[in-house]
Amino acid sequence: MNLLLLSNSSSDAGYLAHALPDIRELIAGLPAGAPAVFVPYAGVTRNWDDYATQVTTALADTGLDIQPLHRAADPVAALEQAAVIIVGGGNTFNLLGQLRRQGLLSVVARRVREGAAYLGWSAGSNLACPSIRTTNDMPITDPEGLDALGLLSFQINPHYTNAHPPGHRGETRAQRLAEFCVLNPAMPVLGLPEGAALRVRDAAITLVGPHDAPLFIGAAEPRLFRPGPVEIPA
Amino acid sequence: MNLLLLSNSSSDAGYLAHALPDIRELIAGLPAGAPAVFVPYAGVTRNWDDYATQVTTALADTGLDIQPLHRAADPVAALEQAAVIIVGGGNTFNLLGQLRRQGLLSVVARRVREGAAYLGWSAGSNLACPSIRTTNDMPITDPEGLDALGLLSFQINPHYTNAHPPGHRGETRAQRLAEFCVLNPAMPVLGLPEGAALRVRDAAITLVGPHDAPLFIGAAEPRLFRPGPVEIPA
Repeated sequence: MNLLLLSNSSSDAGYLAHALPDIRELIAGLPAGAPAVFVPYAGVTRNWDDYATQVTTALADTGLDIQPLHRAADPVAALEQAAVIIVGGGNTFNLLGQLRRQGLLSVVARRVREGAAYLGWSAGSNLACPSIRTTNDMPITDPEGLDALGLLSFQINPHYTNAHPPGHRGETRAQRLAEFCVLNPAMPVLGLPEGAALRVRDAAITLVGPHDAPLFIGAAEPRLFRPGPVEIPA
Repeated sequence: MNLLLLSNSSSDAGYLAHALPDIRELIAGLPAGAPAVFVPYAGVTRNWDDYATQVTTALADTGLDIQPLHRAADPVAALEQAAVIIVGGGNTFNLLGQLRRQGLLSVVARRVREGAAYLGWSAGSNLACPSIRTTNDMPITDPEGLDALGLLSFQINPHYTNAHPPGHRGETRAQRLAEFCVLNPAMPVLGLPEGAALRVRDAAITLVGPHDAPLFIGAAEPRLFRPGPVEIPA
């Protein structure tokens, strides 16, 4: 498999700009004009056409021929032909529910296992996990089950931070993840900070970007990975 | 119905201390030693016995005879006899899933409609809503449906704030609620800040505490309620 999973889409450099070198590496070897599909279904407050335009513009220099999935006359055929599947951020529950109701979840998973490159950020990175149980998003719609693509054997928590607005008495992120680890003690969770990404090439996993990332498993003290190769216990 | 729904349990004054005057008002008229049930199922990282002890200690001066639901030999009988049902905070998905799997959701709802007082905070306040779609919690377990007690005709967002850790590129609370309002345009959402509570006596709803609370409906500008009587559009 060939995945690039970003924590977030935007930085001071602009939309997806911080990730362009890694995106080029993800698709290296593909011919110019290689077919790509963009999945906009995590978008809720934004129009899917506008979302697709924003992404297509940001990735114009990659030479990919990007088709928005919601505009495809035959979405399954579009995914079958895609050399790259791009899944944008927004609300993870909406993303998962749309793909499940359209019957596209298993198609995406199969295509990536067959070799299509997968680029995701935020909700799109959570979708690659066994489930969306470590999303930060609000459950604004029922996705009819929390299981997701299962491309990874572990969970990602995107936008990882333990910073907390002053005076807030709700749970910290570390507390929320500790709750997950109590109910799912064997499932590792990688906290992916803003600006970080995970590069997956078959069994080789690399933490990309300038930041360290903590790995939570059960009640153990989190292990902090430096950028570079990462070994996630099975 | 007779409800007191708190945003949060703790303040600088101590555990539940800020809410004691309102809790006394909620249960005014009940005899000393009136039977109460405490529902600890939102607790995940804390032992339910410890959680029940903390709550029982904090409410000792109220004179209620508080039984933890997880210790009841016959949970349905305990709820049938309860004059007060107390639902603590923690993880809303775990709370809802436990009650649903034990078949207790409809029992709690019926008892409150029959006149039992309901005291909830955080997850316990979300549980009183039509659904848990406006919780801030992580979906660490599948509650097998998001619908909840439906004691209110509108949603609460507990721990409401729009403060944001610096540098965070994820969604703000207002953005998350805007997403909810796009998918559920007819459902009002009251943002309940830390330290605030909602007092419900049949059709009369009062915002309690020192803070204003915004009401979100669809794409309309949020309306800000001052403490005092609150009218939520049907």
